[in-house]
Amino acid sequence: MTKNPKKTDDVQMTFSDSAVSKNDKSKDEKSREPQKKPNAKNDVGDVKDELVDLGKSIVDDINKGQNPKIELSVRGLSNVIYDKESKTLGLGDKTAQRFFFNVGQSKKFLQTIEVAAICKSLLDVQKHASLRDVFYMAKRTIPNTKINIVDNQKESDKAIEDLELITGYSRENLNVNANKMGSVAGKIIIEDSGDTIDWSRLGSGGWSIPSNVENIIFKKVDAKYVLYMEKAAVWERLHEDRFWEKQNCIIMSSQGQTTRGIRRLLQRLSTEHGLPIYILTDGDIYGFYIYSVVKYGSISLAHMAEEMAIPSVKFLGVTMDDIVKYDLKHHFIKLTDQDRERIKQLQSYEWFAKHKEWQRQFKMMKEFDAKVEIQSLSSKGISFISEKYLPEKIKRQEFLD
Amino acid sequence: MTKNPKKTDDVQMTFSDSAVSKNDKSKDEKSREPQKKPNAKNDVGDVKDELVDLGKSIVDDINKGQNPKIELSVRGLSNVIYDKESKTLGLGDKTAQRFFFNVGQSKKFLQTIEVAAICKSLLDVQKHASLRDVFYMAKRTIPNTKINIVDNQKESDKAIEDLELITGYSRENLNVNANKMGSVAGKIIIEDSGDTIDWSRLGSGGWSIPSNVENIIFKKVDAKYVLYMEKAAVWERLHEDRFWEKQNCIIMSSQGQTTRGIRRLLQRLSTEHGLPIYILTDGDIYGFYIYSVVKYGSISLAHMAEEMAIPSVKFLGVTMDDIVKYDLKHHFIKLTDQDRERIKQLQSYEWFAKHKEWQRQFKMMKEFDAKVEIQSLSSKGISFISEKYLPEKIKRQEFLD
Repeated sequence: MTKNPKKTDDVQMTFSDSAVSKNDKSKDEKSREPQKKPNAKNDVGDVKDELVDLGKSIVDDINKGQNPKIELSVRGLSNVIYDKESKTLGLGDKTAQRFFFNVGQSKKFLQTIEVAAICKSLLDVQKHASLRDVFYMAKRTIPNTKINIVDNQKESDKAIEDLELITGYSRENLNVNANKMGSVAGKIIIEDSGDTIDWSRLGSGGWSIPSNVENIIFKKVDAKYVLYMEKAAVWERLHEDRFWEKQNCIIMSSQGQTTRGIRRLLQRLSTEHGLPIYILTDGDIYGFYIYSVVKYGSISLAHMAEEMAIPSVKFLGVTMDDIVKYDLKHHFIKLTDQDRERIKQLQSYEWFAKHKEWQRQFKMMKEFDAKVEIQSLSSKGISFISEKYLPEKIKRQEFLD
Repeated sequence: MTKNPKKTDDVQMTFSDSAVSKNDKSKDEKSREPQKKPNAKNDVGDVKDELVDLGKSIVDDINKGQNPKIELSVRGLSNVIYDKESKTLGLGDKTAQRFFFNVGQSKKFLQTIEVAAICKSLLDVQKHASLRDVFYMAKRTIPNTKINIVDNQKESDKAIEDLELITGYSRENLNVNANKMGSVAGKIIIEDSGDTIDWSRLGSGGWSIPSNVENIIFKKVDAKYVLYMEKAAVWERLHEDRFWEKQNCIIMSSQGQTTRGIRRLLQRLSTEHGLPIYILTDGDIYGFYIYSVVKYGSISLAHMAEEMAIPSVKFLGVTMDDIVKYDLKHHFIKLTDQDRERIKQLQSYEWFAKHKEWQRQFKMMKEFDAKVEIQSLSSKGISFISEKYLPEKIKRQEFLD
C-alpha cells in the first residue's frame, strides 16, 4: 500500500464524489502524507470499522438518491510501478469507480459487497476461512432468481483483492487465509493461540507454519539471520545437522511455493527484529525468481507490497559462480526453451536490468546453457552443504543483493 | 513384505545358488514361516548387517570364482497380489537373479551395489538423505571411464527399491527419506531427536510432520481416533475450532500428497496404539483413491505393504450419500473424461469390485456425473463441518469400510 496508503481517520473520502486520484481527494491535509500501517498485529476492530464504513457509504449514497458506488485503485499492469526508493512494486495513482446501476458493473459491485459481508461475519466470530471457503459462502443464488452471486472462485478472489484495496488491510487481516505450507526451526520462542512454542525444541519435524501469521507474538528472538530455502529436503538436511544451532540462525522452508504466510513471517522477522534474510535455492532461473518475489513483491500482489516485499533480502545461492567454485559442472542440467524464455523476462525486470552483478549471473547462465540443483552439493558429501558451503559463504558474506 | 518376509537369522539364503522361489530356498525350516518385522524403531545395526551381508555374498561369489549375483523378488505387476486375508497388496513368489557378468545386467548390478554402499555410509554416520541426494551421491564416473554410475534419478530410485527387497527394510530404515509434508495436532506427546513435543500445544501451526517417522517415540497417546484429511485448509478450520480437543482425536493433513511419512505415522498410530483412522476428502474419485492407497497400499509400493497399508482404515466422507443428505447438489462440479476414466479403473480394483457399498458409491457418482469439494460444506456456515457434519457422522459411525 506504499502508493495508496489508507487512512484510518478519514475513510469516507474514498467514497467521495471526487473522481481525481486518491491522494488529492483528501479533505484532511494530514492524510496527504503516506501513512504506513503497522506491521504487527492489527486490531480486529479497525479492520471491521473499514468494512462497516464501506457499507455506510453505500447506504449514504442510497439515502441521497445517488447511484451507489465503490472507488478503488486500478490493479492492472498499467498502474503497477516500481518504486526505486522503497525498492518495491506498488500501485500508481489511477483509480476507478464501480457503480451499482451499470449493467457491466452491477454484478461485480454485488460480489464485492457480499464478500465484505462474509469477511465482516468472520471477524465477528473471530474465525478464519480459506479462499475456497469464501467462494462457497458467496456461491448462493440472488433471492428470487436462479443467478449465483459468484460462479467461480476467481470472482470471489477478485472481490477479496478489491477489499484489500478498499480497506487497506491484507486478506489475512480480513480473516481470509492463504495456503498452509512450510516448516521452521531455530532459537525463537513465540506465543500463538495461547500456546508458547519454542522453535528449537520440536524434534525432526519443526513447527508447521500456519497460513496466517498475523497474530503470532515473538517472545524471544535469539538468532542472527534467517535462511529461507525452497526445498524441504534441504531443510531436513540442515535440521539434522543442527545448522541453526551451530550458526545461531533460523531455518525456514516451503515445499515448492513461497506462500503468503511464509512471506509475511519473513517480513515480520526482518522489520520487527531486524534479522537479515538469505535465500537459498537451486541454481536456476526459478531460484532467482523466488528471490525476486520475496524481495520486490510480485505484479499480482503489487497492491500489497508494503505487507509482502522485503527489500533487504539477499540471495545466498546457488549462484553461477558457485558452480565454478564448488566444481558442480558435472551436474549440469541443460536449459529448456522455457528456461531461456524466463531468463529473458527476468533480465528485463527494472530492478535487474541495471544491476551489473545480476546481469552477469544471467549471462553466465546463458553461456553455460545449464542449471544445477542445490542437492548436487551432496555429491561432495552428505553434509558438505552445512559444514562447508553455507558456513564459507556466510562468513565471506558472499551474497547477491 | 507380507509375501516375502526377510529373515534375520539366515540372510545368506537370499544369495544361495538355488533358483527356486524364496520360500523354498530356506535351509532353516523356521524361516519358511513369514516373519513380521517390528513396526517400531528398527535397530540401525540390523539394517547395516543386511547391507554388509549383501556385500559379503558378492565377495563370496568372487572368491569362489562364480559370477557375482543378486537375487530379488520381481516387482512388476505380474507379481503383485492382493492378499484377501491381510487385505493388502503384496508381492508374489517370483524372483529374479541379476548377474555382474551379463551385458544387460552389469550396470544395474553396479548401481545396486553403489547405492548399498551409500546407504551403509549414511547409517554409519547416522544421517539421512533424500532420494535426490542419493542420486547425486551415486552420480559419479566409473573410475577410468567417462560413464556415470547413474545418469538419472530413476536409476538410483530403482536401486533403493532393490535394496528394500533385498534387505527387507524400508528406505526410511536405510536412512533415505521421502518428501516432507503435512501437519498434525491433538493430545499426543512424542519424543523425537531428544525433544519432548506436545501435539496439543503448538499454536495455530501444529507439528510439521517429518519425512521419516521411524524414530519417533509415542510417550502419551490420549485420543480416540485419527482424522486424516487431504486438505490443509480443512485442517486449519478444524484446528481453529479445536475439534481435536472437543472430540478427543488427532487431526492430520497433508497438502495434496499422502507422503510415506504420513502413511507410516498413520500406520504406527493404528498398529501400535489401536487408533481407528478415518479418511476425510473431497467427494470425488481422487478422494476415494486416497482412501484406497492408505488402506490397501499401492502397486508401486506393493513390496512395502507391511509398512504402508492400513487395512482397518475407514472412509468418513464426503460420500455420495452426504451430497444428498447435506444438500450439496448446488455445488456440483461436472465430471471430466479423466474423472470418468478413473472411476472405471477404481471400480474394477479387486477390493472394490465385490464391495456392494463402494459399487453403490461409484454408481451414484456416475449418475450424478458430478463431484463436490469438501469446502462446499462451508456454504452451510463456516463451522458447519466441525460442529455438525463431522460430529454427526462420527456419532452415527457412518463410515465406508
